[in-house]
Amino acid sequence: MTDILKTNKQGVLTVGDADVSALAKEFGTPLFIMDEEHIVQNMRAYTKPMYEEYKGGGLVCYASKAFCIKEICRIAHREGLGLDVVSGGELYTALSAGMPADKICFHGNNKSAEELAMAFENGVGRIVADSEEELFILDAMAAEYKNPPKVLLRVKPGIEAHTHEFIQTGQEDSKFGVSLASGDAVRLLSRNWEHLALAGVHCHIGSQIFEDVPFITAAELMVKLLDDVHKICGRYLPEINLGGGFGIRYTEADQPRPLQEAMRATISGVEKACEKYGVPYPFLMVEPGRSIVGDAGITVYTIGTVKKIPGIRTYVAVDGGMADNPRYIMYQAAYDAVLPLQPHAARTEKVTICGKCCESGDILIRDILLPEVRRGDLLAVLSTGAYNYSMSSNYNRLARPAVVMASKGKARLCVRRESYEDLIKNDL
Amino acid sequence: MTDILKTNKQGVLTVGDADVSALAKEFGTPLFIMDEEHIVQNMRAYTKPMYEEYKGGGLVCYASKAFCIKEICRIAHREGLGLDVVSGGELYTALSAGMPADKICFHGNNKSAEELAMAFENGVGRIVADSEEELFILDAMAAEYKNPPKVLLRVKPGIEAHTHEFIQTGQEDSKFGVSLASGDAVRLLSRNWEHLALAGVHCHIGSQIFEDVPFITAAELMVKLLDDVHKICGRYLPEINLGGGFGIRYTEADQPRPLQEAMRATISGVEKACEKYGVPYPFLMVEPGRSIVGDAGITVYTIGTVKKIPGIRTYVAVDGGMADNPRYIMYQAAYDAVLPLQPHAARTEKVTICGKCCESGDILIRDILLPEVRRGDLLAVLSTGAYNYSMSSNYNRLARPAVVMASKGKARLCVRRESYEDLIKNDL
Repeated sequence: MTDILKTNKQGVLTVGDADVSALAKEFGTPLFIMDEEHIVQNMRAYTKPMYEEYKGGGLVCYASKAFCIKEICRIAHREGLGLDVVSGGELYTALSAGMPADKICFHGNNKSAEELAMAFENGVGRIVADSEEELFILDAMAAEYKNPPKVLLRVKPGIEAHTHEFIQTGQEDSKFGVSLASGDAVRLLSRNWEHLALAGVHCHIGSQIFEDVPFITAAELMVKLLDDVHKICGRYLPEINLGGGFGIRYTEADQPRPLQEAMRATISGVEKACEKYGVPYPFLMVEPGRSIVGDAGITVYTIGTVKKIPGIRTYVAVDGGMADNPRYIMYQAAYDAVLPLQPHAARTEKVTICGKCCESGDILIRDILLPEVRRGDLLAVLSTGAYNYSMSSNYNRLARPAVVMASKGKARLCVRRESYEDLIKNDL
Repeated sequence: MTDILKTNKQGVLTVGDADVSALAKEFGTPLFIMDEEHIVQNMRAYTKPMYEEYKGGGLVCYASKAFCIKEICRIAHREGLGLDVVSGGELYTALSAGMPADKICFHGNNKSAEELAMAFENGVGRIVADSEEELFILDAMAAEYKNPPKVLLRVKPGIEAHTHEFIQTGQEDSKFGVSLASGDAVRLLSRNWEHLALAGVHCHIGSQIFEDVPFITAAELMVKLLDDVHKICGRYLPEINLGGGFGIRYTEADQPRPLQEAMRATISGVEKACEKYGVPYPFLMVEPGRSIVGDAGITVYTIGTVKKIPGIRTYVAVDGGMADNPRYIMYQAAYDAVLPLQPHAARTEKVTICGKCCESGDILIRDILLPEVRRGDLLAVLSTGAYNYSMSSNYNRLARPAVVMASKGKARLCVRRESYEDLIKNDL
């Protein structure tokens, strides 16, 4: 990963041209540092092909579950993206940040009545129904509201993308969506709903996918589904949402295609399928999350205890851990890391980076080569922009880190570090 | 697990004699309900043998990482327990709740300078040093403070207790402690420290342990260590802390001994080892966490989407999930669950309980037999008192549940449910 690192004249790691060690000093550690230009570039990799090249029109929705803070919602809005939210809390965050409700798409396998009411009352643009039961609920609600949201139906395309077991979502054995193979999806989509503004179909085939083929295959399946529905009821549903899942590079083992190429391949897949089946180009949506923010963020820690166990392992403990990044303990996820003050120094020592939580599984990186380190050194774990802050906990009553957005050599605080007082704020 | 459930005259599940369905209505779901009497009984199972039977004197410290809220700290104090804390945040919580500092034992593999200063300034009773380096840090600090904390050294006893890989902590390949086998522990403990109030040894052999033998073995190793140190430097260190790890019942597959018997067996192990080696009875500490609160708590959810996938699986989705209980996705932990309104109804349907998070791994219980359920039914997951609330996150921006303490038919709110506003309180 060191080939993509940027440094200043002093050889210090920079993010958004800001000196990482200076930011660590200013804001303390652990610290999430996000690269604003990088986020914007990632967003444009999707919006440019979608808005300038695809002829059916479309909307790129940032999947906010990857990293849902107000500032990211603002940037997404500024860059012309919509937002994918999966809870009342994410919807609240998006609305608080000024994201127009009609550009919000509300997801979830088990939305509550309160959440659905919140979506209707705030004029959310689209709701992705996850089950037959929910279609009936939405149909009934649509009768009671003016301008109800458009409704898409989440479909299980039956594709198992090559990814970690826990983040496969396209297969039949999934809590998400309605089966395509069983005929349920066609039946529900071609039904004459009384009030429902049925607009189209949604699928999501997995996460951290590096190949174009699964997306092209999903696109063809969804276009064919629109054709099948048309054959039954004589109308073309106008929208397809292909979800997210575009892979990013966590370590050198990951070799994703450039996002823009992946997006173009997907668009091309939709267009070719439309030509094949004679289906008019649908309004197209995609929902990238990880690929927008994942490689645009790092976490900076301060190294504390360095414990050499002769013949066994060296544990390098940092001032955070599974509380701010639970992806190793959840998925044995792999990360790379560098020393911000000497990012290109020879990596001579095999160590395991662990956290400060009272748990043996509190590992950030197992068996990584690093230069020799000692107490007080900074350590930057790379590609932590997605599913780190958003999955963070207060386990061991650790306060959640601050988040800063770096751009053009400066950084602004986006989320304050939690205080001890914050930790007990709801205790009586 | 249904054999231990308590119900009222109407056949409804009760906790602390309070009707679980009434509490769900009053406080909403998801809801953590803790049984105060059960917690107190669990505490007394340790304190009675320790304070009334063991001749060396001792202190039972509740390991607050299992569930660290102010009210639990208050109950622990009232019942004569001390507290094991592992961070500044836990220390802050304990002190805020009125736990006397001298009954607090501060742990951690990587305490920060700020945390150590906080411990010294507040007069914490004991610090468990985790490394040689930390002993030197503590020695230097002890020179600067009046009445510095007593220091124990965490030792790796080299025991691998029968438990899940991620929660083994006694083995040599661990970030915790100093090796016994290498001679490091003896060397550091028999050293003439200039300022340090070296008081003894600490070990922790794992979690969810059902046998007495590992504890007895650990006790003997620690007593022998005191003897070895005495042989070198002519003094007996006065304290042994055997940590926690006493198992609880999550499902019927777990068959723990009564806690009081486990505690007696451990005490007996210490006494016999002292007799064997001619070592004076040390002041004894244990640090139960899970076994104090784990089986005293339940989580009550409301069932939403019930998705039957013919021939594959039925997913029963609840209004919480991995955000309030990440133990399945982290450890594939097993739980049992019942319907509070019909806890003894025939279990005829095999289902998988999932959450509402946008993630396939968001499972609470895979393949459990339950009565047939439908939207709106309550579901109680049992034995969620430990490592659920304390590990909870705001993933998907879900608000953390409220916590109530039930006793004698009533319940009092201990932790307020998070609001949407809480979720963005630190966003700028």
